[in-house]
Amino acid sequence: MISRVLSAELAEHAGQRVKVAGWVHRRRQLKSVSFLILRDRTGLAQAVLSGDLPVEESVVEVTGTVTVNPQAPGGVELTAPEIAVLAEPAVAPPFDLYRPGVPAALPTILDHAPVALRHPALRAPFQIAAAGVAGFRSALDSLGFTEIQTPKIVASATESGANVFGIDYFGRPAYLAQSPQFYKQAMVGVFERVYEVGPVFRAEPHDTARHLAQYTSLDAELGFVRDHRDVMAVLREALAGMTEEVRRRAGQAVETLGVALPEVPGEIPSIHFTEAQEMTGEDEPDLSPAQERWLSEWAMREHGSEFLFVTGYPMVKRPFYTHPDPERPGYSNGFDLLFRGLELVTGGQRLHRHADYLAVLGEDVGPYEGYLSAFAHGMPPHGGFAIGLERWTARLTGAANVRSATLFPRDLHRLAP
Amino acid sequence: MISRVLSAELAEHAGQRVKVAGWVHRRRQLKSVSFLILRDRTGLAQAVLSGDLPVEESVVEVTGTVTVNPQAPGGVELTAPEIAVLAEPAVAPPFDLYRPGVPAALPTILDHAPVALRHPALRAPFQIAAAGVAGFRSALDSLGFTEIQTPKIVASATESGANVFGIDYFGRPAYLAQSPQFYKQAMVGVFERVYEVGPVFRAEPHDTARHLAQYTSLDAELGFVRDHRDVMAVLREALAGMTEEVRRRAGQAVETLGVALPEVPGEIPSIHFTEAQEMTGEDEPDLSPAQERWLSEWAMREHGSEFLFVTGYPMVKRPFYTHPDPERPGYSNGFDLLFRGLELVTGGQRLHRHADYLAVLGEDVGPYEGYLSAFAHGMPPHGGFAIGLERWTARLTGAANVRSATLFPRDLHRLAP
Repeated sequence: MISRVLSAELAEHAGQRVKVAGWVHRRRQLKSVSFLILRDRTGLAQAVLSGDLPVEESVVEVTGTVTVNPQAPGGVELTAPEIAVLAEPAVAPPFDLYRPGVPAALPTILDHAPVALRHPALRAPFQIAAAGVAGFRSALDSLGFTEIQTPKIVASATESGANVFGIDYFGRPAYLAQSPQFYKQAMVGVFERVYEVGPVFRAEPHDTARHLAQYTSLDAELGFVRDHRDVMAVLREALAGMTEEVRRRAGQAVETLGVALPEVPGEIPSIHFTEAQEMTGEDEPDLSPAQERWLSEWAMREHGSEFLFVTGYPMVKRPFYTHPDPERPGYSNGFDLLFRGLELVTGGQRLHRHADYLAVLGEDVGPYEGYLSAFAHGMPPHGGFAIGLERWTARLTGAANVRSATLFPRDLHRLAP
Repeated sequence: MISRVLSAELAEHAGQRVKVAGWVHRRRQLKSVSFLILRDRTGLAQAVLSGDLPVEESVVEVTGTVTVNPQAPGGVELTAPEIAVLAEPAVAPPFDLYRPGVPAALPTILDHAPVALRHPALRAPFQIAAAGVAGFRSALDSLGFTEIQTPKIVASATESGANVFGIDYFGRPAYLAQSPQFYKQAMVGVFERVYEVGPVFRAEPHDTARHLAQYTSLDAELGFVRDHRDVMAVLREALAGMTEEVRRRAGQAVETLGVALPEVPGEIPSIHFTEAQEMTGEDEPDLSPAQERWLSEWAMREHGSEFLFVTGYPMVKRPFYTHPDPERPGYSNGFDLLFRGLELVTGGQRLHRHADYLAVLGEDVGPYEGYLSAFAHGMPPHGGFAIGLERWTARLTGAANVRSATLFPRDLHRLAP
């Protein structure tokens, strides 16, 4: 039995008889000759033969002689091929997968995800996402972080009262976790530096291009920080690691989509919230989408950076566990990171003293009792951040909708496939 | 400002004045001298001084002169130290964290996880788990796999009717996914080889030492296999990668727990289910725990292996998507992997032809419609497996209860912390 060769390796086998396997990406039957373009996970390969060909998306093994042909994909093609059909499609795809462009609207793509994502341009964002996650992990691993796995079923909706999914937990009410926030903070007490890559759930009633009911959160938290600036420095390393790993592992996907990978500056420029408000002439306690776009353009103009930190958001707009700026009451040690006009990451320094939590939560800590117990046992100054993987991928690939960076999105209307 | 040095690095700084930071692991106040043992993520460091010391679990920075003392942990200690307290504990831990043994029962440990897991022996399994997951990923990355993220909220309880958690999904019924089975199979059609590390949910009504309502599943699935043997070969690589990465990254945790890491044979021995039944003199369609133990001992005796594949389980005991053995009707191309007396992994070859699914599911495919759509578009022969991370960690560390390898377990009775 001849073992399988991948299409990207074919050129190394010129003159040999080899077997490739994959899907019939395209067939072209001319009067005297037929071309079968086979697709596997590494690319395309061409076989030349005469006669009928299996329909598109048939699964085939093609055994043939690797023959140099500068006009074929990869510079070689298979001649004198024998074709074995491993599986035949029962129905045709909803659109032609072999066309360079995608002749279908997003709902059609999502409804038919198992087959639609075979299109190289629709598959590419996920190859970029996989490389990005790998880069996130390796950057944090090299900084002494420990990966953790935390519960997704929780007893109370602690992070924010609204937008939680309720569960029937053995007859008791429970909820899907909106974030691993409290668990990652508690685990700073055990491992000092932790990260988690996992699903988070938001019963998000808004039907927008940016919101999902489930997304993948890249969470990190670290102890013994001076303040939020140490957290920002780690975030910078994570982003650089993600970009670098995309360059290294997902070059073909980057090329397919024509993605321009960003430069992550050694130090990402940073402005205080109050400066941002002054520059944009606004005085709301939060930044509008238009301001975020303006600030991103400013950062590029002024600092040549596609990334910009906005620090010191007003305490009123940040969660209760946010550490205030000791020198500017009312402002926080919380930050956002803008990337190409949009908020991509939220983070900051957290409260770490037990007494400070009691002060903000009051005497009746109720559902926060378990959370607070970690702080009763001595916690270092700490902080962290969370990157939405799908949002990062969408921003990087220029997707207009975050669903294009989600294999099987979940939202207000969509629960299948 | 002096930047922080980790306790494991202290010996490199002999003679210098440095700052360490961590928790007061133990204080010993003798008549004329006091010892403060500080714990950070890399180990312990000793400071020698006179006078009162902060209580255990206080968070401190200690600045002192690194002085050689062969009797101190790591061969050095900090002399003439200055101590700054960053946070004081509000209450004492439920048991002494500095004793080598753990003087507490499992429920106490679980109830107080945020502080109990600071004990080096209770923390160690999670350092081993983190290293194991990293090894799983790097082994599969090097074999051309793509990491995926799939939905944890699903429209129907497709894998098995019972033991699912129901969710209120925007007023509609939905369920927590029991496995990424169908999604990983569908994604073989897109990426050929995929893996996912993520939570799975079982409304497990049994209160045992082996079952959890949420656990971390290391799932893999690959296309273009000959049969289940190609899947077993990949599983062997994953297990070898996991073990190797534990050795490389978690040496200290391995030493703390006295773990004997297994040798993963180049080819893991394998016996057919019917042989296993003959050897153990049973004829049920499944193996009992006693048989699993016996077979593990046999594999060690006969093959010097702590791992054993049992192949060819009867079709009646395997899920509907299992591929039958073409040569032995009634038996499957499914396998289990036994490790140290217990089933650790389940896997096998799956059906891949659309017609075969229609044949087993009948005309009214109902909730499987979305699942089947992938197979309607041409799927290669494929198979995969799933490793329970907590079960692997527990088995490796000799833990009697899988909860000792779960940061915050979820079960019939436990929903907090």
